[in-house]
Amino acid sequence: MESPIDSYLRRIHNEIARLKDGAPYSTIPAMAQVDPDSFGIALATVDGQVYEIGDSREEFTIQSISKPFTYGLALEDLGCEAVDAKVDVEPSGDSFNEISLAEGTGRPANAMINAGALTATSLIKGSGGQSSFKRILGTFSAFAGRQLSVNEKVFESELKHGHRNTALAYLLRSFDIIEDDPAPVLEDYFRQCSVLVNCFDLSIMAATLANSGRNPLTGKQVLGIGSVERVLSVMMTSGMYDDAGAWISSVGMPGKSGVAGGILAVLPGQVGLAVYSPPLDDHGTSVRGLATAQRISRDMELHFVRAARAGRSAILTAYDVTETPSGIRRSVESADVLRENGHRARVIELNGDLLFAGAESVARELSGLPDSVEVAVLDLRRTEQLSDVALRLLTALRTALAEAGCELVLVEADGSISASLAEDGGPVPSFSARSEAVEYCENRLLQHYGGQEVPDHVPVTASPALAPLGEADALALQSRMTARTYDDGEVIRRVGLRFGGVYFITSGKVSSSSPGPTSERVKLNTLSAGMTFGEMALGSSMRQETTVRAVGPVEVMLLGEDAIADLEATEPRLALALWKALTRDAYTRVEQYLRESAVRIRE
Amino acid sequence: MESPIDSYLRRIHNEIARLKDGAPYSTIPAMAQVDPDSFGIALATVDGQVYEIGDSREEFTIQSISKPFTYGLALEDLGCEAVDAKVDVEPSGDSFNEISLAEGTGRPANAMINAGALTATSLIKGSGGQSSFKRILGTFSAFAGRQLSVNEKVFESELKHGHRNTALAYLLRSFDIIEDDPAPVLEDYFRQCSVLVNCFDLSIMAATLANSGRNPLTGKQVLGIGSVERVLSVMMTSGMYDDAGAWISSVGMPGKSGVAGGILAVLPGQVGLAVYSPPLDDHGTSVRGLATAQRISRDMELHFVRAARAGRSAILTAYDVTETPSGIRRSVESADVLRENGHRARVIELNGDLLFAGAESVARELSGLPDSVEVAVLDLRRTEQLSDVALRLLTALRTALAEAGCELVLVEADGSISASLAEDGGPVPSFSARSEAVEYCENRLLQHYGGQEVPDHVPVTASPALAPLGEADALALQSRMTARTYDDGEVIRRVGLRFGGVYFITSGKVSSSSPGPTSERVKLNTLSAGMTFGEMALGSSMRQETTVRAVGPVEVMLLGEDAIADLEATEPRLALALWKALTRDAYTRVEQYLRESAVRIRE
Repeated sequence: MESPIDSYLRRIHNEIARLKDGAPYSTIPAMAQVDPDSFGIALATVDGQVYEIGDSREEFTIQSISKPFTYGLALEDLGCEAVDAKVDVEPSGDSFNEISLAEGTGRPANAMINAGALTATSLIKGSGGQSSFKRILGTFSAFAGRQLSVNEKVFESELKHGHRNTALAYLLRSFDIIEDDPAPVLEDYFRQCSVLVNCFDLSIMAATLANSGRNPLTGKQVLGIGSVERVLSVMMTSGMYDDAGAWISSVGMPGKSGVAGGILAVLPGQVGLAVYSPPLDDHGTSVRGLATAQRISRDMELHFVRAARAGRSAILTAYDVTETPSGIRRSVESADVLRENGHRARVIELNGDLLFAGAESVARELSGLPDSVEVAVLDLRRTEQLSDVALRLLTALRTALAEAGCELVLVEADGSISASLAEDGGPVPSFSARSEAVEYCENRLLQHYGGQEVPDHVPVTASPALAPLGEADALALQSRMTARTYDDGEVIRRVGLRFGGVYFITSGKVSSSSPGPTSERVKLNTLSAGMTFGEMALGSSMRQETTVRAVGPVEVMLLGEDAIADLEATEPRLALALWKALTRDAYTRVEQYLRESAVRIRE
Repeated sequence: MESPIDSYLRRIHNEIARLKDGAPYSTIPAMAQVDPDSFGIALATVDGQVYEIGDSREEFTIQSISKPFTYGLALEDLGCEAVDAKVDVEPSGDSFNEISLAEGTGRPANAMINAGALTATSLIKGSGGQSSFKRILGTFSAFAGRQLSVNEKVFESELKHGHRNTALAYLLRSFDIIEDDPAPVLEDYFRQCSVLVNCFDLSIMAATLANSGRNPLTGKQVLGIGSVERVLSVMMTSGMYDDAGAWISSVGMPGKSGVAGGILAVLPGQVGLAVYSPPLDDHGTSVRGLATAQRISRDMELHFVRAARAGRSAILTAYDVTETPSGIRRSVESADVLRENGHRARVIELNGDLLFAGAESVARELSGLPDSVEVAVLDLRRTEQLSDVALRLLTALRTALAEAGCELVLVEADGSISASLAEDGGPVPSFSARSEAVEYCENRLLQHYGGQEVPDHVPVTASPALAPLGEADALALQSRMTARTYDDGEVIRRVGLRFGGVYFITSGKVSSSSPGPTSERVKLNTLSAGMTFGEMALGSSMRQETTVRAVGPVEVMLLGEDAIADLEATEPRLALALWKALTRDAYTRVEQYLRESAVRIRE
């Protein structure tokens, strides 16, 4: 099925193709031979999906769209301060070939006008055996994700007819803004303007800027976020010359146009847009390019104000551990202690990006915890962008919580956030499953409030699953069981096995996991001494639904399938009591899952 | 516990307070009497949380920070086109009192310089018995969320000493940009500049702009999103006069400063920032205000480029209905049909904001579905911002899917999205619980591929829970049951009740719900003829965990607690078979919950 974004692009391409205003650039003879009807659009997302229509693979020279990329390379090479000393960041509101040098110093207003762009080019030096131009072309190619080349005919023609730029370069030399011979700078500049690109390339170059400098196709970090920030800031105010204000109001994205008819726009975090259509308006901007950018911005709500609308609440849900207990079987006294003190451990599940707004809401939630809370669990498994500000806030929160007598505990895939927070004050407890973090909380509460932690060893007769039975019955069942031991990591029950009896863990821990829908292994929970497994295979398919592995050395008592059959035949009363106990035990689990669903799904 | 954001603000407030550069504004005598050490900061989130430090409640006159708000009111009153005819949107790069009128027309460059601001004020007319100034003050007050007032002394002083503004107003009159008598316009303008605000107010005014025009404290929509977009666009390029470029590069938020020492910055979708400190730099901007904005932007990553970083994937998870079946008991043949054809119905769970990037990824997922998929379920319960572009894309997707022979089904709280999509092509099936949508899918597949839908009536003997028993045993159990009927909406089992037996639904449907952690009612699932309930109360607490209600007329057969006790005493073999069947049935449910957890939690 065709994506509605493709059909949308086809529709507006059709409509905007009817615009016949403007004329192709004619100052450079080699550029005059273009088809004014050529018209391509490409829209690339920050994860590298490209939607294209029309002449999106037709090549043209990049011209002034080269400026932000060379400026970015200069920033990356020399740092902001050194570049700022040569080129300011102020909008000039002038046309592209305006001279706009500061009185006295000769410093160009910004790197998007020719004077500033020439200066930026002059700052790129050869290195590592690569000429300055090789480095420029290499950067453009890294942005595009493919090796680009130069249209030599256009280059020769620009070199021959670029009188005004030649004048500008020498003027800049007179102010010592350009410090060396202007001739090779001019050559580099004209060459960079003559690099051949198509809409697809430009959309990827734009998406690389939108993606904080990382090319979405190659995954390569082409520019640091600091340089990207600077480049897009300057493009925002000065990318469209004397159209800047109207462009920001009607398109609302940093943009850049070139006289060959290309135009590029960047919505940080979302998309890169490129259009190609040679006829230009009086400002030197592609008529159809501008119309397309305005139309797509409006229809797709890409204006920076609209695109950043509110409401990303980072907190998915928050609840006391009593609401979704670990499921570990406790003694009656311990269960009472936990019921009474469960509000002292709070789980906060986060969601989405942790940029400022998200991190702030986490800070607010944690800061507002009642003094009675002693353990705060942050479940970070669903968060995607953990910004530096979020890490700094978490570090500060961790310290402040510790001072208030509350421990921070994390649930995360790989312990990396815990490691980042660990610098001061020792390691932050980190678990890969929520149930393990909850178990940790419960044990903390039991230590403080006098219940018992999970004992290392639980005899079958003390198993909560058999609690409804008297001790004599439990002993009678135990006499029908077989003892087994397993080493760390050993698989005890594998997914797909037929029912093989009920396993009572008497010592150690096991973890159960299940294949996810896309077949990664999903860890479900950890079971410890006193708990049972294996009954799951009694379900609809009569097959084991999870794989159970030993975590450390494990001892179990197995009430096998044959033992159960024999029990039913010889001691129906005890068999009845067993099945009744197992039913009850199963419903204890159903109940637990229901509780977990209830805290997650609100309607 | 103190929020780390408060302690952070205290720290930078301390540091920046040491900056002693600049001098308070002295042109207006009534404004000269200020304490140069006054220094307040307020940071407001789009949901109305305000962090303040220092002299954040000290009042000062709003001065030029009034400009974006009056401009916004003019846009709201007259629309962009009429306002644009009077005031352009181009950056002037000039200082605040620059004349900057277009040659020939006299049109001011933008509404942030005095000429443009005077023009914007002239566009506000009295209406509904309110004078023009009352309307301006009313708008400012609505932005601040409290009634603001005017410092009459400053007003009188400005009126007396504002020669340059008076000259500007008459110049604008000469060009017919101001169309009426300039005197009352000047009076309104000086009055609007003399409105008293504090940092708290300004931060809320900024947060209202950040929040798409809705005041986060009062909930009132003060300005439409179109006007907000325009105001913030102009502030982005022209809010800081000749500092615009440096401001965007180093702060990266639309901002506005006033000569009384106030400064305001807006990060769309996230925060509003306000600072007050009277000493000004050469551009008329508060020295500490600028330093604070730069510092907070850097530390909190509020620059528009950084604040919009990538990665908000809207798709939480996607799976075939076979992976999380509805849980409705089917005949063996129907179950086979569903197992074989479950891949034809796909569930896609969405998450977070559906702005362009999110909507695009949904479009991509739906467009890329294999041709074999006949029903696509979008679970929208976790999405927060459903932009117009998302609605338009969903509408287009729905049509395109229909043409490709695939039906779109929604899971959403209230059916409102379904209603929005319904315009063409009839209603879109919409359910408030995922399990209902999955049941719908299963029924569609059974219709197409020859299984049976859920029958209206299922005798106890055909209940899947009793499937392991022979017919004679099932009949023997049935003879111990009592028939009951319920009307639509009637509560059959209420949460907290003790175990009262097992209910077999023989006709109709029931829904089960449970109180959520914050005590909203959470609907868990729907059970239909053939299914059982009531056994849940066998769990740990021996109490009913859910409330079960009739959906339409319902008939059940109840195997009561007494009947079970009698059965155990008189027919232990049958009792054993019953409990064994119930255990199996319980594990079928555990299994289902496990599957659901597995598709949701990846590690």
